Amino acid sequence: MPVNLPVPVAADLYPINGVRLGIAEAGIRKAGRKDLTVVLVDTGASVSAVFTQNRFCAAPVQVCREHLASGVGVRALLINTGNANAGTGADGVKRALATCGSIAEKLGLTAQEVLPFSTGVIMELLPVDRIEAGMADAIADAREDNWLRAAQGIMTTDTVPKAFSTRVTVGGAAVSVTGISKGAGMIRPNMATMLGFMATDACVAQTVMQQLSRELAEASFNRITVDGDTSTNDSFVVIATNKAAHNAIDSLDSADGQALKTAMLGVARSLAQAIVRDGEGATKFITVIVQGGRDTAECRQVAYSIAHSPLVKTAFFASDPNLGRILAAVGYAGIDDLDQGRIDLFLDAVHVATGGGRHPSYKEADGQRVMKQCEITVRVLLGRGDASDTVWTCDLSHDYISINADYRS
Amino acid sequence: MPVNLPVPVAADLYPINGVRLGIAEAGIRKAGRKDLTVVLVDTGASVSAVFTQNRFCAAPVQVCREHLASGVGVRALLINTGNANAGTGADGVKRALATCGSIAEKLGLTAQEVLPFSTGVIMELLPVDRIEAGMADAIADAREDNWLRAAQGIMTTDTVPKAFSTRVTVGGAAVSVTGISKGAGMIRPNMATMLGFMATDACVAQTVMQQLSRELAEASFNRITVDGDTSTNDSFVVIATNKAAHNAIDSLDSADGQALKTAMLGVARSLAQAIVRDGEGATKFITVIVQGGRDTAECRQVAYSIAHSPLVKTAFFASDPNLGRILAAVGYAGIDDLDQGRIDLFLDAVHVATGGGRHPSYKEADGQRVMKQCEITVRVLLGRGDASDTVWTCDLSHDYISINADYRS
Repeated sequence: MPVNLPVPVAADLYPINGVRLGIAEAGIRKAGRKDLTVVLVDTGASVSAVFTQNRFCAAPVQVCREHLASGVGVRALLINTGNANAGTGADGVKRALATCGSIAEKLGLTAQEVLPFSTGVIMELLPVDRIEAGMADAIADAREDNWLRAAQGIMTTDTVPKAFSTRVTVGGAAVSVTGISKGAGMIRPNMATMLGFMATDACVAQTVMQQLSRELAEASFNRITVDGDTSTNDSFVVIATNKAAHNAIDSLDSADGQALKTAMLGVARSLAQAIVRDGEGATKFITVIVQGGRDTAECRQVAYSIAHSPLVKTAFFASDPNLGRILAAVGYAGIDDLDQGRIDLFLDAVHVATGGGRHPSYKEADGQRVMKQCEITVRVLLGRGDASDTVWTCDLSHDYISINADYRS
Repeated sequence: MPVNLPVPVAADLYPINGVRLGIAEAGIRKAGRKDLTVVLVDTGASVSAVFTQNRFCAAPVQVCREHLASGVGVRALLINTGNANAGTGADGVKRALATCGSIAEKLGLTAQEVLPFSTGVIMELLPVDRIEAGMADAIADAREDNWLRAAQGIMTTDTVPKAFSTRVTVGGAAVSVTGISKGAGMIRPNMATMLGFMATDACVAQTVMQQLSRELAEASFNRITVDGDTSTNDSFVVIATNKAAHNAIDSLDSADGQALKTAMLGVARSLAQAIVRDGEGATKFITVIVQGGRDTAECRQVAYSIAHSPLVKTAFFASDPNLGRILAAVGYAGIDDLDQGRIDLFLDAVHVATGGGRHPSYKEADGQRVMKQCEITVRVLLGRGDASDTVWTCDLSHDYISINADYRS
């Protein structure tokens, strides 16, 4: 049961002029599942992407990086579930390239104009023939108003499709932003989520696209964690189709650049938080804010230490205000000269600890009341500077174990 | 159900001349539990200890460090369960000192000759009066052949008392080594386990004691993890009573030093591994060996990345050879210039992956067979040097969640 994450309504998702999406059942791992998605992009779009920092990055990630570096432009994305094509060595790269070549041929493109994405089980060979057999159906299905079905097409252990959309005025023109994402486990993105795709019809110079995708990922997907496992396949793609009637944005610091980036960040954060809300076995959505650090990096370090602690996460699952576990996680976060005598801890508005110990006015009943909620904010003050950072996570429940013990069966 | 960890037999534990142990029921958290243990040490012993690196270290850890630094010598250890006296600020230190003062008075010692140890719930005030009330019983109970009962007296969520013993000849004299430990959750010692105590009647110069305890901890307690949560209270104490009839060891590099250290390391490793075997919810004991690294530190980093991955740990619980999860954990361990094309993975003797991909001869049935065992060795070859390191861990099961969701109830 996802935490406060309703199923999106197709009518709420703005089509993006210049982007068509189609899905098909290719029988990649199991029959009868929508497991193949294509995203067709008109010529002239600006595209950039960020990828996992996992050194065991998947074959499709390696191919994406090469194709983007070639500078020929991006005309199609090919996305499969059921097989991650990761831990597959040189053979995996050949197979990813083969699927790019096949769909390029069907679309009258070159293989380099295609970006491949795979998600699913690691260390199994990609069934190229089945993917090729499903391409025609997916291409035939491609429409501009197909974002919700594409969100469904890229789901694996997700229980809810993730899609958000917004509109903003840029350079006097109304532009749309729409995005989809997937992911529920193996989530501690270190660049992007498992898979995230966003598009806008706004006009953005290719020169600022890499900065845009990186800044969007940094403030959204790179601030979430479910289980601390950084995936081999994390990919986040941003497409600007340049169809809207306004002058192209060539600096993110301009008024138009700021307006567009703010709108896109809203969608990116919603997509990232949706992954946590639908985290495997999640029953609670936790916002961890760390303030008073010397720099953002140390605040993030402490926030992740709390967000990854199995003991903290099970206490949230149990609604048990066993909050000393949070202090312990602050203590082992790796800040060598941390002074425990300056630490404050809040649970929502409840002041739990001060000066390294229990706050004199703290009552267990107050902690208990907050812990029972399904949305909780943990706030830690380090008392050593002015920096702060925020991370979003979920609790650790019996269902996480069940889901991951049974994943392949 | 601990993994291959039988309940120790009192007759197998050698008494240590110069060390007496006694336990009592002090009703610290709940009535009817053996929750107070004293260890009385004859004059003239060499003593050293290592403690948690958690910056939120508990009040008793702070007091231990001060008392050891004073150099007056150690005559008594006072150990309570049911309350960690951590996250308790300046008041916690006062309370720890008060208990030292009380037992010192009863024993005709100074407070500085007492080391206090606490384990249990964090951020609750230590009930000094109840501990004081239990001291007389614990002192009256003190005997040299009481190691098993002391191992029982320091248990919290442990299901089996942990005690090991050995004998070795040093300088022509037969000496004994006996140790006890406790811990099952919040286990990723970064100096020592939750609590570990070892004693020998061998003669060891105080000048080499710190080196001895550090080296023993490094190769035992500092190589285990259950859940990656480094406790606020980890403490490991080594006592040499200097009662045996041989010349004192003043260098660990001497033949006698090596012989004693090897014997003590055997006990320390058994105590450390016992904590993993009795890890909360553990059904499997996993040895993670990483070889072919540039240095020990990077091997350890990769080993802990595997040992902490919730996805790897649930796959072990499920006996599911979903071994790509291990490759993913290798990839995100933080070695920036890791070449996935040089990685090999073995599960016991089964060669699972080579050159970054599935080994041509690997069959799922072989992986399945090993995964069903309750003792499994994961071996990763990094192919970039000659260093290696080993870490011991357990799986992540439904019972871990149940135990930690219900811990305080």
